[in-house]
Amino acid sequence: MNHQSSAPGPAHLPPPLPEGGLRVVALGGIGEVGRNMTVFEYGGRLLIVDCGVLFPEDAQPGVDLILPDFRAIEDRLDDIEAIVLTHGHEDHIGAVPFLLRMRPDLPVYGSRFTLALLSAKCREHRQRPVLVEVAEGQRHPVGPFELEFFAVNHSIPDALAVALRTPAGVVLHTGDIKLDQLPLDGRLTDLAGFSRLGDEGVDLLCIDSTNAEVPGFVTPERDIGPVLDDVVARVRQRVIVACFASHVHRVQQVLDAAQRHGRRVAFVGRSMVRNMTIAAELGLLTIPQGLLIDLDEAVNLPETKVLFISTGSQGEPLSALSRMARGEHRQISIREGDTVVLASSLIPGNETAVFGVINGLVRLGADVVHQGNAKVHVSGHASAGELLFLYNAVRPSNVMPVHGEWRHLRANAALAVRTGVAEENVVLAEDGVVVDLVDGKASITGRVEVGMVYVDGLSVGDVGESTLSDRLVLGEGGFIAITVAVDSTSGRAVSSPTLSGRGFSDDPKALDEVTRLVEMELSRTEAEGITDTHQIAQAVRRVVGRWVAETYRRRPMIVPTVIPV
Amino acid sequence: MNHQSSAPGPAHLPPPLPEGGLRVVALGGIGEVGRNMTVFEYGGRLLIVDCGVLFPEDAQPGVDLILPDFRAIEDRLDDIEAIVLTHGHEDHIGAVPFLLRMRPDLPVYGSRFTLALLSAKCREHRQRPVLVEVAEGQRHPVGPFELEFFAVNHSIPDALAVALRTPAGVVLHTGDIKLDQLPLDGRLTDLAGFSRLGDEGVDLLCIDSTNAEVPGFVTPERDIGPVLDDVVARVRQRVIVACFASHVHRVQQVLDAAQRHGRRVAFVGRSMVRNMTIAAELGLLTIPQGLLIDLDEAVNLPETKVLFISTGSQGEPLSALSRMARGEHRQISIREGDTVVLASSLIPGNETAVFGVINGLVRLGADVVHQGNAKVHVSGHASAGELLFLYNAVRPSNVMPVHGEWRHLRANAALAVRTGVAEENVVLAEDGVVVDLVDGKASITGRVEVGMVYVDGLSVGDVGESTLSDRLVLGEGGFIAITVAVDSTSGRAVSSPTLSGRGFSDDPKALDEVTRLVEMELSRTEAEGITDTHQIAQAVRRVVGRWVAETYRRRPMIVPTVIPV
Repeated sequence: MNHQSSAPGPAHLPPPLPEGGLRVVALGGIGEVGRNMTVFEYGGRLLIVDCGVLFPEDAQPGVDLILPDFRAIEDRLDDIEAIVLTHGHEDHIGAVPFLLRMRPDLPVYGSRFTLALLSAKCREHRQRPVLVEVAEGQRHPVGPFELEFFAVNHSIPDALAVALRTPAGVVLHTGDIKLDQLPLDGRLTDLAGFSRLGDEGVDLLCIDSTNAEVPGFVTPERDIGPVLDDVVARVRQRVIVACFASHVHRVQQVLDAAQRHGRRVAFVGRSMVRNMTIAAELGLLTIPQGLLIDLDEAVNLPETKVLFISTGSQGEPLSALSRMARGEHRQISIREGDTVVLASSLIPGNETAVFGVINGLVRLGADVVHQGNAKVHVSGHASAGELLFLYNAVRPSNVMPVHGEWRHLRANAALAVRTGVAEENVVLAEDGVVVDLVDGKASITGRVEVGMVYVDGLSVGDVGESTLSDRLVLGEGGFIAITVAVDSTSGRAVSSPTLSGRGFSDDPKALDEVTRLVEMELSRTEAEGITDTHQIAQAVRRVVGRWVAETYRRRPMIVPTVIPV
Repeated sequence: MNHQSSAPGPAHLPPPLPEGGLRVVALGGIGEVGRNMTVFEYGGRLLIVDCGVLFPEDAQPGVDLILPDFRAIEDRLDDIEAIVLTHGHEDHIGAVPFLLRMRPDLPVYGSRFTLALLSAKCREHRQRPVLVEVAEGQRHPVGPFELEFFAVNHSIPDALAVALRTPAGVVLHTGDIKLDQLPLDGRLTDLAGFSRLGDEGVDLLCIDSTNAEVPGFVTPERDIGPVLDDVVARVRQRVIVACFASHVHRVQQVLDAAQRHGRRVAFVGRSMVRNMTIAAELGLLTIPQGLLIDLDEAVNLPETKVLFISTGSQGEPLSALSRMARGEHRQISIREGDTVVLASSLIPGNETAVFGVINGLVRLGADVVHQGNAKVHVSGHASAGELLFLYNAVRPSNVMPVHGEWRHLRANAALAVRTGVAEENVVLAEDGVVVDLVDGKASITGRVEVGMVYVDGLSVGDVGESTLSDRLVLGEGGFIAITVAVDSTSGRAVSSPTLSGRGFSDDPKALDEVTRLVEMELSRTEAEGITDTHQIAQAVRRVVGRWVAETYRRRPMIVPTVIPV
């Protein structure tokens, strides 16, 4: 396949794009799951598909969000024609407000539901973006790119794939996609449309890799309905269903089950309430008359007459469900015989949190139904079997797997080859790798720098790798701060050193010996005539660090402060 | 079932054990997976079954190990008759050296392989424990407890279950167990023996819960052999197999596959080398003549003639496999076409690390075979189907699920009830809950305090919840230290405040404004005549904390030091 195995893609900057060529660079989303953002360039003009966020891992403590790295386009903001959003998930729209800060007038193309979710997000950022509503079947010329939109199904309504027709060739970007052949809303992935496009000729297919390792086909969303129905039918107490706040069809099936079994429903969690209100307004969610009820009222209903639909399915510690599991929820306290359904995936990395919530609920007496013991979740991403259908419909000349970690990308590439795409036309790239489509052949020509851009609280980018590495050290071992005031002419300590350790030991006497050590070291530096505060600080750091390593075999951060007085 | 649902087991200390009664208290291992330790008491004498460690989670940063809480037996060390070890895994033997520090003369009972692994561990602690080797079929009177040992199979050789006959009744403790009906070494779990014991009458069954949620039966270990064979047969380059360093039968199957396909084998990783040497010496591992080769030699063999068996299957960052995945291993660099087999489970909590390793290997061009895409691992713990066989063989009067989180315990309890154990005779306990067997009835009578005992570096117990909570704060937000020297009579600052922030921001100017703020605050405290250093420090902390929260929406630890001069 078309990549170097030691470090994929060359390290050098790409050569200028040949005239008539099309360039593709992902600034996020390849080699990772999240912060999807792909930049297309033709004739000096840029088009961006998706602009999402990535959620941090344990090695990125304190970080709220991770953005795509905009550096590669920062000098070319005026060349950008538009952003196209494939659907409304956070990993596809979450970074739009940060891009709009730099180009507030940038038009944003998307389907009705996608734009409604984006608008809600932009309101929180006090932005009023320029929105262009599009729908499947439509064509829109945007600069040199002629866009065509295709219906696709996924775990959120109103998702689109987008084709870009340019003089350099036709690109199809699937976005997140699956091929549910019995979708709840009857809106099929437009495989017929993809086939027509394939007849015309697709030069490059950018295709969702998330489930490429999973054999077979995703069970239809519809099949979850009877399972939910069974659960609700047999519970003699309260039912609490947790799922993603954007999964309108999942919520629809829960509402339908509640309705059939005479339970009224309350939404729990701010994003659930907000998104379902939007979905209902747009006609994407059908709420039977009188079914919905306020949480405050719901908690007073008989236990057999109520069902809660809650956020918190990923074990988020501040979510309603986590509070219930800890017995700390203000309104809902779990009792023996209550049933909690996690109608959701278990996103890798969240296992400890989710199992913690399950154990907490079980400990309080609840029965917990989850994808491990019942069919209450199906994925939103095409499995290998479905990807084969896509390859065979589109018949692309070149393929570039997107949306996935390396294991997913490689599995997807292997599927492409099995359907007959030439190995040398399958491009395994990652974030920053530059792919040029020239004369019908896609190849890697260089690499632009793409790093992690962290959002922590209100500011973007001031928390970087050095701050994170300090946090990891502090988180592992705490710190020991030693403050001494020295006479600036003689270098003599004018008072006893002040010590404070945090995150080092619970034992108040742990550092008793350090004072003596520091005093001895200060006598030494004074005797040697050292008056430079930096030199004195280094000496103190060294002597304390060595003592702690030998005595405790630990590595706290040693923070000496020497004040000249 | 026999437990309170709001907080399982009463909070009060248990009443004195009635004469002729048997008491059971787990000091670790119930309500969690790890640090197994159960204390049995009869007639004033104690017997301990297992004494293992728990590995820390993300919420316990910097911690190396977690021990069972010995406080409940600390005042009764002389009453302990012995420790009985069911098998040699770390979560069953790892804390023995810490217990032996308090009672170096305590006899330790276990099978040959278990004691060999314990001896190696104790040597590292410079201890020479009193060992009593036992084997299946044997009976040993130990104080008032008559022990009988039964062969069981698990993911390590030479595992035992133990029955305790006392005048209060017969207890069977399964240890970790499964019912492989075609074990590689022919050593079956002694279901016939359990049935005989059941004929005699078992008053209390303490039973492994790990896989109680999993329906059906664990595939025989033996079935992995052909899969490994297929992989090795088709690879045209190097093969690296990672698995647990104690899984002798897994390693045996890898050795056999290598032998059949003309590959020589090198062990990689200190614990792998050590354990396999022990296993070979005890005749538990058969290494064909001339198969084994040194790592230094192995790396020079042709790629089709070598196979590496390595540690690191859980993504441990310092392990050989992780280094290979990062391209940092001194001797083995992964090339396109190499195959890595993770012949191991994926322990919950390790997903991010393991997938990180897989992605790293795939990125470098390796094919990675793991339990997600091939049958290269089977569990060491009985699934629900096997547990039913155990219940029906033993026919216990009372059941106490052990070894598991709450979800596992409750699932196991449900299985007991389905085989006919009366609901009120199934005891759902957790660490510290006291269970008394009196007149043939087991019931919860109280609770002793059991907390987490952390080992961090060389010392035990000085890192507690307050240190960990400081570490979590520091890990999330870093700290800002502000040092000021004040005249102790006037309260006037004698120099500009010194500021240092670590883990807060990469921006060197981030704290520029803070100096001015602190100076203003110091003027205020001086004007108000405040000379108390503690009061001044509090004022500084408040003003800086508020500014940071408003400016950055972050919560670093604010560490003011006021030095009186």
